[in-house]
Amino acid sequence: MLRFELLATEGLARRARLTLRHGVVDTPVFMPVGTYGTVKGVLPRSLEELGAQIILGNTFHLWLRPGLEVLKTFGGLHRFEGWTRPILTDSGGFQVWSLGDMRNISEEGVRFASPVNGDRLFLTPEVSMQIQTVLDSDIAMQFDECTPYETQGHVTTEAEARASMELSLRWAARCRAEFTRLENPNALFGIVQGGMFERLREASIEALVAMDLPGYAVGGVSVGEPKDEMRRIVAHTPQRLPESKPRYLMGVGTPEDLVDGVAHGVDMFDCVMPTRNARNGHLFTRFGDLRLRNARHRNDDRPIDATCGCYTCRGFSRAYLHHLDRCGEMLGPMLATIHNLHFYVNLMREVRESLDIGRFGAFRVQFQADRVRGVDG
Amino acid sequence: MLRFELLATEGLARRARLTLRHGVVDTPVFMPVGTYGTVKGVLPRSLEELGAQIILGNTFHLWLRPGLEVLKTFGGLHRFEGWTRPILTDSGGFQVWSLGDMRNISEEGVRFASPVNGDRLFLTPEVSMQIQTVLDSDIAMQFDECTPYETQGHVTTEAEARASMELSLRWAARCRAEFTRLENPNALFGIVQGGMFERLREASIEALVAMDLPGYAVGGVSVGEPKDEMRRIVAHTPQRLPESKPRYLMGVGTPEDLVDGVAHGVDMFDCVMPTRNARNGHLFTRFGDLRLRNARHRNDDRPIDATCGCYTCRGFSRAYLHHLDRCGEMLGPMLATIHNLHFYVNLMREVRESLDIGRFGAFRVQFQADRVRGVDG
Repeated sequence: MLRFELLATEGLARRARLTLRHGVVDTPVFMPVGTYGTVKGVLPRSLEELGAQIILGNTFHLWLRPGLEVLKTFGGLHRFEGWTRPILTDSGGFQVWSLGDMRNISEEGVRFASPVNGDRLFLTPEVSMQIQTVLDSDIAMQFDECTPYETQGHVTTEAEARASMELSLRWAARCRAEFTRLENPNALFGIVQGGMFERLREASIEALVAMDLPGYAVGGVSVGEPKDEMRRIVAHTPQRLPESKPRYLMGVGTPEDLVDGVAHGVDMFDCVMPTRNARNGHLFTRFGDLRLRNARHRNDDRPIDATCGCYTCRGFSRAYLHHLDRCGEMLGPMLATIHNLHFYVNLMREVRESLDIGRFGAFRVQFQADRVRGVDG
Repeated sequence: MLRFELLATEGLARRARLTLRHGVVDTPVFMPVGTYGTVKGVLPRSLEELGAQIILGNTFHLWLRPGLEVLKTFGGLHRFEGWTRPILTDSGGFQVWSLGDMRNISEEGVRFASPVNGDRLFLTPEVSMQIQTVLDSDIAMQFDECTPYETQGHVTTEAEARASMELSLRWAARCRAEFTRLENPNALFGIVQGGMFERLREASIEALVAMDLPGYAVGGVSVGEPKDEMRRIVAHTPQRLPESKPRYLMGVGTPEDLVDGVAHGVDMFDCVMPTRNARNGHLFTRFGDLRLRNARHRNDDRPIDATCGCYTCRGFSRAYLHHLDRCGEMLGPMLATIHNLHFYVNLMREVRESLDIGRFGAFRVQFQADRVRGVDG
């Protein structure tokens, strides 16, 4: 099931409410990524507390470990990972694509060797739907081919991008048929491809809209293209998707990218950046970013951001976080991850509040100014 | 300050209340170890929730990182690490002793090279008191020489153990003088040494008691000696310490060791076992131990221990914990550490409750039977 209620708009920006089988999601929303059935380094209760409404799981990884037999025992991913709110799963398409030379793509699907144990595996649109049905994710993504920006220095041509996009469309139809056959009670999203070519994006949208899926994602961005190329597609594609359905920009991005995405009509985002960067001592704040490893934090008793309400900023100093990082203590990434996820999740809450009162435009201007101010400015 | 109120006894076992500058500690108590200003892998709020009343810090480690300059900025260890309840710090003696060939012990103190940056350092009884005064720990430990059970195959002789014990006594007197000179408002504990020799232990006690310190520890056990040697000393020494003062058995031990220690009059324990073992997938339960890595947990939807009330057992299965361990996910050690610390801390709560109603003897018999029953028995 999926219900999407548009509550307010401002320009292309949208404030909406998404009702899924495991609960309600207020959009625009950021979805933390939990590859192997865990958002790295965070207790599920901390995720709930910092306001995460929906998290991601990775079909490809969960298929390999723990595998479907285990996930069936638990009736899906929710009970297995102890998360009661909605879950979105990707299709595995991006991960098998990321295997590079280790996979072989055909019309039927993708053959590859398991990076865990070398087993020969075959992932098809049908298999992806079968796995995501076992996972019982609230939103399943179609199996697609992620069109690369370039391959070993060769920038993808329009003809190549078209062939890839058309393959993804045929796979979308197969996904839809299998999802229906499996009587999956959740929602299936289609993925718009077409590389950096607007007319291909439009063709992809037209064909996917004809399939009448409950939601649509924009894929194939944030795949190595120059930033202005990405901006061009984000400014072009999301606003052309059906107004009455949720729009998800996959794998994006920086805090600025999220706010820009909202301005161009995006409702949903996911990215590993807040969690991965946290583990590398890169902290996001409203007033710019902060590198924990910098020796100037050594004796600084201020929190990361005095205006932040997260558990980390309420109780711990930059000096302490710097010390934990220097000693390689687990608590360092744990506290940094809480802060970064709180920042991303809370940024989207602020965006929603600005949309509620018709002040998103002003919010965006202030946000852009704040971000370049510098955290100690 | 330190106030010690004996509330009940049963045989040699004692139920008491210890009031320190940062709060009250109910004994018998287990103290989680936080070497570098963090109990590895646990948020301070989780420690509070699982009932930890007092934690340890390591003087030696904190001296090297973050160093005294930083700790002075924070007015001590409490605010630096975000822990408001009592803290006990060791003296650094055990750690410099553990450096082996890298240190040089004299009457004056211990010279060694910093394992962090190679700096030549000199730790003396006076320096240890100065560091612990900066740390502002509720309980400071005297600087002592930990008498080894054996050194490169040579079992310590009585003459060697006597010389070492007498050095620790002279250092205790210097610690007491320096602690007083520094006007440290907290409590200093003496440490009984004497190796595996009862008459040396008695001589050590006699001299330390004459110094009238507010509490006493038994050191030099759990340092590589056979288990029956350790049991002999635990059965001999604690009960000979002053009845009106807290007794702390350093670095001990297994759950059985803790209950036996209580039976022999011990009030306080610390050990890295629950935290270290958790990170290696070794979980403690009332009904025996469980190795997460064992493949038989792969599809087991039961919690570690259905009778355990910890966050981990309330929300997560053995299969999930096995999966996290297999994938090397941080959440694995995080959840395992919560469980093991909860088990240790809660075991001491049960011991206290049994002492409150004069049923510790019966509790101990039941506990010993439960522990060998097997977790799935």
